[in-house]
Formats: sequence, C-alpha cells, structure tokens
Amino acid sequence: MKRNLEWKVGRSSNKSTPPDCFYTATVPGAVQLDWAKATNMPDYTFGDNVKLYDGLEDFYWTYQATVKKSEDNKRCFFVSEGIDYEFEILLDGKLIHAQEGMFSRVELELTDKIKSESLLEILIFPAPKRADAPVDRSQADHSCKPAVSYGWDWHPRLIPLGIWDETYIEYRNAEFIQNADVTYTLSEDLSRADVKLEFEQDLLWKIFAPDGKLVAETRDNKLAIENPLLWYCNGQGEPNMYTVTAELIVDGEVADCKHMKIGFRRARLIVHDGGWVEPVQFPKSRSNPPITLELNGRVVFAKGANWVSPDIFYGRFSKEMYEPLVKLAKDANMNILRVWGGGPVNKESFHELCDEMGIMVWAEFPLACNKYPDDEHYLDVLDVESRSIIKRLRKHPSTVMWCGGNELFNNWSKMTDQSLPLRLLGKNCYELDKHTPFIPTSPIMGMGHGNYVFEYFEGADAGRDVLNIMQERKMTAYTEFGMPSPSSPEIIAQIIPENEREYPSRTSAWITHHAFSAWTKEGDCWICLELLEKYFGKNLTYKQIYECGSWLQCEGYKAIFESARRQKPMCSMALNWCYNEPWLTAANNSLINYPALPKPSYYAVQASCRPVFASCSIPKFTWNAGELFEAELWILNDSYDNQTGGSVNVVIEINGERHQLLTWDFPTPEPNKNIEGPVVRWRLPDVDVKEFTIHLESNDKSLNSSYRLKFQPAEVVEETNAMNV
Amino acid sequence: MKRNLEWKVGRSSNKSTPPDCFYTATVPGAVQLDWAKATNMPDYTFGDNVKLYDGLEDFYWTYQATVKKSEDNKRCFFVSEGIDYEFEILLDGKLIHAQEGMFSRVELELTDKIKSESLLEILIFPAPKRADAPVDRSQADHSCKPAVSYGWDWHPRLIPLGIWDETYIEYRNAEFIQNADVTYTLSEDLSRADVKLEFEQDLLWKIFAPDGKLVAETRDNKLAIENPLLWYCNGQGEPNMYTVTAELIVDGEVADCKHMKIGFRRARLIVHDGGWVEPVQFPKSRSNPPITLELNGRVVFAKGANWVSPDIFYGRFSKEMYEPLVKLAKDANMNILRVWGGGPVNKESFHELCDEMGIMVWAEFPLACNKYPDDEHYLDVLDVESRSIIKRLRKHPSTVMWCGGNELFNNWSKMTDQSLPLRLLGKNCYELDKHTPFIPTSPIMGMGHGNYVFEYFEGADAGRDVLNIMQERKMTAYTEFGMPSPSSPEIIAQIIPENEREYPSRTSAWITHHAFSAWTKEGDCWICLELLEKYFGKNLTYKQIYECGSWLQCEGYKAIFESARRQKPMCSMALNWCYNEPWLTAANNSLINYPALPKPSYYAVQASCRPVFASCSIPKFTWNAGELFEAELWILNDSYDNQTGGSVNVVIEINGERHQLLTWDFPTPEPNKNIEGPVVRWRLPDVDVKEFTIHLESNDKSLNSSYRLKFQPAEVVEETNAMNV
Repeated sequence: MKRNLEWKVGRSSNKSTPPDCFYTATVPGAVQLDWAKATNMPDYTFGDNVKLYDGLEDFYWTYQATVKKSEDNKRCFFVSEGIDYEFEILLDGKLIHAQEGMFSRVELELTDKIKSESLLEILIFPAPKRADAPVDRSQADHSCKPAVSYGWDWHPRLIPLGIWDETYIEYRNAEFIQNADVTYTLSEDLSRADVKLEFEQDLLWKIFAPDGKLVAETRDNKLAIENPLLWYCNGQGEPNMYTVTAELIVDGEVADCKHMKIGFRRARLIVHDGGWVEPVQFPKSRSNPPITLELNGRVVFAKGANWVSPDIFYGRFSKEMYEPLVKLAKDANMNILRVWGGGPVNKESFHELCDEMGIMVWAEFPLACNKYPDDEHYLDVLDVESRSIIKRLRKHPSTVMWCGGNELFNNWSKMTDQSLPLRLLGKNCYELDKHTPFIPTSPIMGMGHGNYVFEYFEGADAGRDVLNIMQERKMTAYTEFGMPSPSSPEIIAQIIPENEREYPSRTSAWITHHAFSAWTKEGDCWICLELLEKYFGKNLTYKQIYECGSWLQCEGYKAIFESARRQKPMCSMALNWCYNEPWLTAANNSLINYPALPKPSYYAVQASCRPVFASCSIPKFTWNAGELFEAELWILNDSYDNQTGGSVNVVIEINGERHQLLTWDFPTPEPNKNIEGPVVRWRLPDVDVKEFTIHLESNDKSLNSSYRLKFQPAEVVEETNAMNV
Repeated sequence: MKRNLEWKVGRSSNKSTPPDCFYTATVPGAVQLDWAKATNMPDYTFGDNVKLYDGLEDFYWTYQATVKKSEDNKRCFFVSEGIDYEFEILLDGKLIHAQEGMFSRVELELTDKIKSESLLEILIFPAPKRADAPVDRSQADHSCKPAVSYGWDWHPRLIPLGIWDETYIEYRNAEFIQNADVTYTLSEDLSRADVKLEFEQDLLWKIFAPDGKLVAETRDNKLAIENPLLWYCNGQGEPNMYTVTAELIVDGEVADCKHMKIGFRRARLIVHDGGWVEPVQFPKSRSNPPITLELNGRVVFAKGANWVSPDIFYGRFSKEMYEPLVKLAKDANMNILRVWGGGPVNKESFHELCDEMGIMVWAEFPLACNKYPDDEHYLDVLDVESRSIIKRLRKHPSTVMWCGGNELFNNWSKMTDQSLPLRLLGKNCYELDKHTPFIPTSPIMGMGHGNYVFEYFEGADAGRDVLNIMQERKMTAYTEFGMPSPSSPEIIAQIIPENEREYPSRTSAWITHHAFSAWTKEGDCWICLELLEKYFGKNLTYKQIYECGSWLQCEGYKAIFESARRQKPMCSMALNWCYNEPWLTAANNSLINYPALPKPSYYAVQASCRPVFASCSIPKFTWNAGELFEAELWILNDSYDNQTGGSVNVVIEINGERHQLLTWDFPTPEPNKNIEGPVVRWRLPDVDVKEFTIHLESNDKSLNSSYRLKFQPAEVVEETNAMNV
C-alpha cells in the first residue's frame, strides 16, 4: 500500500543551519516552484522573469514530512524514483542515506527505525557547479546533472532541484517480492523467445499474450515462447506487448504480486547495402560504422526527431505531459525519438507510451557538449547512475539503441574514444544490455549534425540554401538538422511585453526567449531577421515574419527529410532538431511549441514522413523569371506493405494559373525501395508574383505533395544583381 | 621448487581411443615437431615439405608424464603457462581439468589427488576449425587460436598444437603466496606514484629503485613513491624499472617470496595539434579519433614495425629467439612494435625484453581479418582468454595500448563497432587496465593500412610509385605499409631446390615460400617480377632480382617512414609491415629474415628512424634525362634533447660525377619539431647511366642521408614512349 506524504520545504544558506521557515511542497516537483508559489514570484515564462530564479539553485533546501508507523504492523519503506541532485536523507535527525545522482532509485526500509510518528527530512545540496567554470553548461561537466538546465540556445538557465519523481511511503507485508526481473533472448530466426526469470523467492510466473490470453505459467527460472508476436515500430507493424505477472504465495495466499510488460524485438545497427565498398584507396582506412536500424530482421528507415525536455522542471514531467507529444510523433509518421543527452532521462510513463505507440527510443546518457573528465569521483557517480538508467530502460522494447551523449567528439566538447566516461558507458551497456546497440556519441563517423538555419551567411556554404546544400551531402544519418521559425503572434502575446510585440528587437524578453543571441552572442538566431529580410524584404510586420519564417521552416525541413530518404540505403536516418520545447519560445527549431502545439512545420514534416508519397528534389529555393526550373520526381517508400503503381501529374501553379508539365506513370514500388522518376524541366515565365508552387497530384490523393518556392520577377532580379555589383 | 617432467606424446584418431604408441616430447613445443622427429619427416623449411604436415592438426594428441608425490610432504601443483588449444587434463585416468584457450594459465593442486607416482595426461583436441569454412583463415573465426597458422600470404598453413609455454610441477610449502599483485596510478603531474598492493595474506613488501636501493617497505596495502623515475621508451629516456618483492613470513621465516618488476609510466592517445579543426562543413561529422601517443606527458612520434610470430611454432618462442629481434628494433631507432593480432600473444620474455629495451608494445588480441561472431560460446572463451592476456600484459610498462585485432572494420572482415567480441574486449580492458588506451581495431578512422608494393598496376593509383603517392596522403597514422623484397641468394639456397634457384618460377617451392600467388592466387607477390622487369628490364639474374628488389624496398620504406614523419603533427605513427618473419621466405615485406637476419632495408629504415637527420622529399623514383629534378629538404627531428643548427650540402652524384647543388644552413631544431628547408632544383643531364644518388651531407655526419634513384637516358625514354603509344 503506497502512501504519499505531506511535504513542506524550506531553504538555508549553509548545510548546518536549518531553514527559518517551511512552505508547502509539491512532490514530485522542484524547490524553485514551491518557493515561487510561497513568495508570489511572477510567472517565469513571461518577459525575462526567469532571471528572477537565478541563484535559487545555490541554497540548501530541506524537505520535511511526517511518517507514521503502520497501524497493522506492516513493514515500512521509503521509496523515491528520483531526487535531484545531491542529497541526504535523515530520520528524526539521523542520517540514513546519502546520494549523488538523480537517476538512481532510493528504497529504504524504515520499519525498525521509525517511532509511531517520525520526521523524515531530505536535505538537497546546491546544484553541482564546477568551481572554476564560466556560468554556462560547462559548470555541469563534472556531474550527471542535465547540462541543458545551465542554459542552452533554446533553454533558459534555470537549474531545478528537489524531489523530481514519484516518492512515497509503502507499507508491505512481512514477505513481499524482493526481486523479479524478466529478460529474454530471441533465436536468430526470431521464431522463439527464451525468457529468463530472475527471482530469489518462490514465485508463480504467468505470461499473457497481447490479446490477454495466458501463454505460459511456471515456477521455473526460464520458459520459451514459440513464435512470439514481435514488437514493431510505428509504420512497420503492431507494437505487441506481453504481460508478465509474478505472484508470491505465502500460506496459500497471494502475499504480493508484480505486473510487468515485455515486448520481444531484436534491434541491431547494421552496415547499409553497399557500405563495405569504401574505402577504396591505399593507404586504406576503415569502412563507416553501422547506423542502419534493423528491427526484427527488417531494415527500417528511422524517421523522427530530437526529443528535448518537455518542461524546464523535470519534476513536472508526467504521463499527461508526455502523452500528446508522443501521440503527435506517431501521427507524424515518425518511428523514433532521439532523447538528447543534454536533457534528463525521462520518467517511466514516457517509455511506456513509446512502447505502446511504437516509437523507438534512442536513449542517451546525460552528457552533452562538455568535456566530462577522467575523474574517479565523476566516474563513480556515472557508473551508478548509468547502471540505474540501463536497468530501467532496457525493459522497454522501444529502447533500440544507447548513446553516450551529444556531440562529444567535436571541437566544443573534445572528448574522444579514449575518454573514460564513454568507455565506462560502453562497458555498462555491454554488461547489462549487450544485445542493444551502443554508440559513444552522435555524430560518429559518417553521420552529420546540421544545418541549423535555412542559409548561412558565412563559411564554405555561404549563400547557398539548404535545398541546394543537401543536393551534394552524403551521410549515413542526419541525426540533427534544424530549421528555425518564429512563433505565432498568439504565443508572442504570452511571453513578450505588449509594447515590444510589434517587431522583434534585442530586448531582454526577446533575447531570453531565444529570438536573438541564441547560438552566438551576436547572432540573430533563432528569429533570423537578416535572412528573412534578404528573402522577403525589409519592413515586414510580425505576422509576415511569422508566416515567412514558417514557410522557410516547412520547405527546409521537407528538403532535408526527403533528401535523406532519397539517399537510402547509404542514409538510413533523419532526425530533425528539435521536436518539442521546454517552454514557449519566441523562435525555435522545434516542430511543436510548448507544451504540445504543432507548428505549420509539424504538418510539413508529417507529410515528408509518410510511408509512401510522391516527392521531388528541388535544387534551390529561389527561382528567377526566365530561369529553367528543374526538379527530379521520386516515389519515396519505406513501407513493406504491398503497394500499387499509379500516376503523378506535375503542375506548376504561378500567378494564379496551373501549368500541367507531365504525367509520370510509376511502377509498383518494391518494399522499402524508392523509385526515381523523370526530371521536370520548365522555363519560368516573367510574372509579377513572389512565389510559385509545384504540385504532385496522384490518382491516389494520399500520395500528393506540394512545394512552395520563392519567385523573383525580372525586375527584382535586375535590382538584386545591381545591388550585388 | 619447480620440476620439469619427462613428457611423451602419441596420437589417435578419436577421443576415446588412446594412442598406439608414444614418442619423446619436447615441452614447451608442438606435437607436430615431436611427431616429425620421431618419424623422421623432412625439414619443413625446405621446398614444399611443409605440406607434409597437413592434417596432423586433426588428430587427438595425448601427452603423458609421471608425477611424484613430494618426498618432504610439500604441496604439489601442476602449472602450465599455456596449452594449445582445447584440452583435458587427467590424473590416473580421471578428468581434473578441461579448457579451451591457449592464453589462460593452468594451475592445479594435485596434493591430495596423487599417489606416490601418478600418471598425468593432457589430451589435446584437434585444432579448432569452423565446420563450414573454406580451408583458410576463416576456419579460425570462432576461436581464439591465432588465425595466421591457418595460412597467410607470408606464412604457410601449419597449425601447431600442444604444450606451448612453460609447464612444470611445483612443490610448495603448506603456506605460500596465493596472490600478490601490484598496480599504481600516477598523479596528473607525474610527481607521485600511488602503489596499490593486492594480497590476501600478511606480506612484507619492499620496493627497490632502478639502482637497487630500497625505496619503501610496508605491510600495508598501499604506499606512495614521490618523484618516481619514470619508464621511457627508446630515444626518449631510460626504461626505468623498479623491483618489488613480497615476502610471506611464517614463524619468523620467509616461507615464500615473490619478485616483480614495475615501471611507472603514463601512456595516452591524444588528438594531435590542430586535430579539432576538422570537420568544418555542415552537416558536421566527428573529429578524427586520437592516435598520437603521449608518454609521460610528452608527445612521442611512434616509429616501429608490425611484429609477427618469430616462428611457425609458438612453442619455440623463447628469450633466446626474442632477444636479438628486440635488440635489432632498439638499434633501428624504433620505439614501438605492433604485435599483430593474426599471431599469438607472446611469452613473458618478449615483454620483459621490451620493458628493458624501451620498446613500446601495441598489444593486439588474437583476432584478424575474420568476422568473429556474436556467439555465446565464442564470447565466453574470448572473455576468459582476454582477461588472462590483460592481467599478464598490463604489468609491463611497455604495454602502451590495447587493440581488438587486425583490420576488423574492413570489407574482408565485416565486423563493426557493434560486434560483441570487440565490445567485450573494450569492456575487459576498461575493467582491468582502464588507464591504458584501447582501440577496437587497426585501422580506425583517419589511420591507413598500405601500400604493400612499390607500384600498383591497377586501381586509382596505377602507374604511380609509392614516393609519388605519399606526396598527397594525409593520415593520422600509417600502421601498416609494406615494400617487398626477394631474399638473398644465400637464403634461397636454403629453401628452394637447386634446379629451381636460377630464376623464380611458379613452382611449388617458390609459391610455398610466398614468391608467387601470395596476396592473390594470380599475383606475383611478393617477388614482384613484373614490376622488377618494368623497372629494370627483362632477363635479370637472380642476383640482380635480389639487388633491384632490395633497392626498391629500401627507397620505398624510406619514402614512407620519412613522409609520415614530415606529416607531423597530424601524423604521429609509422609502422611498417612487417618487421620479422616466421620462417625463411623467398620474398617478403619484412625487414629481417628468419630468425634475425637484417635485410638491406633494415639499415635503410634504421636511418629513416634516426631521431634527427637531413631528409628529402622526392616526388618520384624514376627520372628522365633533361627533366627538372626537384626535392624538398627537411630536418626531421623527434627528439627532445638539445640540438644545434648546422648546414647541409646537397650533392647529386651521377655518372661518377658529384654536382654540388646548394648549402642550407639550418637553425637549431626545436624539440620534436621538423624544419622545412629549401627545394632543390636541378636540370638532369643526358648520360648513359641507370641511376643517380642525391646525398645530403652535413657538418655533423650523423645527419647524412642518401637517396638512390632510377635514371633513364634520353634513348630509353624515347623507347619507352614509343612502346606506350
């Protein structure tokens, strides 16, 4: 029997001084939220109010609650799924537990320690910060605390602390199930699951099929399931899950019972077709590492996005917060979410939802963009935390791969294959879940991160838009790429003071919400005003900024997702940066505004992720009057379902007129194979419009696509040329 | 007290039938050698006699010896450092031990099992062969047996079996030292060694400095040594070693004593200067993995070679066999040997010699050019074997890096970063020796293997010699590159029948000794007759073949070693393929003929590995009359010792005349920094000679270098051009 406690919390400046006074605490939650409520702090989401929370993370915070002895002589346990970050637990003033790390469950038996009523205290230490680090994410580089909370280009600096996951008192029978774990191995041909049951007491195990029928019953430590219904990801089959129950029988009665879910699947990373040809030349290096996902023996093109914290406060993560977001991923035809290592590992309900909806999870450890050290204390904490994470997440069939963390082998992190934290993570993943792939970081050799804007003003690719750049890139996986857009006027109204809303300016509120100075101090990311002015002229209204920015985001994302899919089989993964956001932003690369509001680009990506559709490869975004328009037609297909051939009409709509260019009769697509179609060519007229659209219209309307491109009449082209001279 | 046994050995066709008769066995050794001696088989090194040994590896072999009880009531142990490969041990017919794997020590207490005289038997199973594999190295791909024994392009097929390392009976006191292990960690600034002593009994520990003075004495499990004398590799300092003794005192007497050596050093793989700049372009991949060796905080350019089995029969490896070879490496200015994973892990004496002579060891596990499987049985054997290997080799300061095996991430192997054997090896190296770097295979990203001939006839680089190709390659490490040469007429006389010696032909003897059909069935590797004819004309005598082939080997190796050194700091390693050979070859890439006979190329490489010398970069090997000769001058320096500047005269010697081209006054080289000098340019005359030499002559003669190049008079050039049209 679980009992939630009535918690209060107070703060103090040092460890030895108790708080002056206590406030009501919400558990799970965060000390900052309780403090804000108690002291009537203004809403952190508005303007630059978030800065008022600065420094709260440097206090000691003490939670208090009263625990009562069981009235019917049951054993009493304190259980917490997560306390953030370093803490001590005291009972009636006596230390009973100390821990560093928010991802390792706490379970303490209090039975013989409590009086009829005892005071339970949890003393939360100040947030970990490397002493000599600047005030940024590098403060987190000696801890397992999510680095994103220290500030990121789309996340304010606000470092939550406190009890962040389910925490309760449990009264248990004298005998209860101490340990009951289920693992399995699938035979090479997937026709049999050998289930291994781990337990210490005499338990009665039952396994029920997805339809609820009892499949097997045993008191033994193993059983085999013939022809198990496998777990498939979205678009490839049903996410079948079996139910397992373990019953502890004492004196003929069920003294305790444990329910578990299990999904049988085999996930591998394999080398793509043709991947062994390179390298050719002597001296010869290695071939690319594998990044093609094979699920249950079937190559799956991984379509999805980078999942970030759905809230600044991890303590507010809940099934209610997760569910619409995971559902939107499923509805967007996605099959994978990369849970980015800058944020925290999610709560159980996230993984349960991913299991249920067939969303594969790329599970990353909490390391990102920092040089995590070969330091014995850090390695000890990482060892315990990572083992806790692996043991919890490996139970979920959706956990198809492990990753050490984000961008650790790049210039801004400077970790390497020799870094002990990554070698430790590889070791722990092997020990605890060796049949699930592990990569040390993203990107690895052959994979790419970026672009993050529609067009760069500097560097080797300056002046080329993303449609154009993607024509020549050849990577095995695009595991981050971003296209920013401004948020809608309705959202701006919720976060920017009224007198600043008309036009984005470098005020504190716009900067705080990532419109400016996000990526670089000088930059105008993520609002990209300079780029919008280059493309669409000066003196735009905010509504125009929103609409034009959204247009670029839509076409940019379509270009990358569809280009990645055309590069199959060498390329096997497309994950945009990023899926969601932790609060309302003024501008961001996300497809979805906080908490779960799809942007126009969400629907564009949804279309580009359809299993089968007519697509075209367009070499650039801006076209001039009189120019020869060219685009390759494709049928993109990553489905293994039976398909039929059909026809696609290509229509260019410009200046209100529809020009039918050609009809392409395409054959029946083979499973998970694209079809290359003809190249459309058409001399663009000189008309006084600013855009045109290419429509691919099929007899099967579900295959239709449209691409909206920018047009420059002759007069504008001349002006631009004159300006450039 | 150790007692060797009198062994005999016999063979049988199946496990249940005992041998008909027994022969004298040499231990350590190999069953094939005993059999050959007993049955008067001809010398396997001559002609194609080695083929007569085919099939011997498919028998069961039984060793027998008599063990006597201790006369003075001591405990009796059977100890073997290595039995090859799968075996059972029986005492008076009763199974007392079974094992698969030749690298895990056997120690069995027999005290309570033996009678006054007992029969000890070791039943050796047939060599492991994957049942469905072709008759080549892939037969070894499910075992930890060295793949090279199954046949390689420079190693005959002959798969040794039997007791291959020290094996004896040891009579011990009732109490003896069960376990005494020494490990250490160095402080970040290298000023302190924290020594950890592992033991179970009460031991008195003493540590003696390299000069023999007692440094510390303790009964505790740790001690610190301030300012330890560090172990340095050849060319960088002294290979300082401390001596550790552990004494077990029983009743005031030393009941047992153990002596150990320990060398304090810190070895790291770091990213070279400038290595973080790449990649630049979006989408952005990772930076190159680190391969620059840093020893005791000092970047060391790794100069050396690939060490292969010094004998076909591992059982014959001995200090006497190793010593001249390791000494030659030291004398060649080398500081590292890559112990290639196709061959076996070496015996202790090899590693002791490397410790003493400052030769760093790149230690590879026994995996090479095969797809070792994710198979539970194989993983279990590899786990035990690799743990044994790591625990033995980690004690040696010379062991500066671990490597999973050879060329596993290439087309001919098809293992990947996800392969469980490699993930297991990474895990074990972390667990047992985490401060020593681990790479999964060679080559990894950025590193290169090859070339292996002076010029290729096919592929993208066809028609370009190795001097030319190396002008444009940019790799972080050249960890294999080979230049073959024919063996001397004296060696040919030892291995090729008299009537075949005059000119190499595709007879069985020449093929067996790798002159032909080595690399490919059709190829003329390693004698390279076609290439020699192209360069030096038809109708060469064998003496000319030897001399011309040696010339190419010398200049080819010089070009690669010196080019790699010029590519510093991006490149930090040059290891030629291969150093030595397991038997006398007719032609091979080795620098040293079996057992330890330096070839001319040994001396060329010795010169190219000097710490400091005048070098030049020559863009090709063959020059024509009237052509403008060009070569860059360099001072190559990888020493940290104080240097002085000086001058280099450049002289071209052609047709018996010396032409002085220039004098370059070079400044004082900075530690471990090269100096770029001027480009020599000189119009070549038309003279009727076939070669010319460029001499770099310094005031300090130890810096001098010469390069011998091929020359074509105008007449020859015309003929060649005419032929090519």
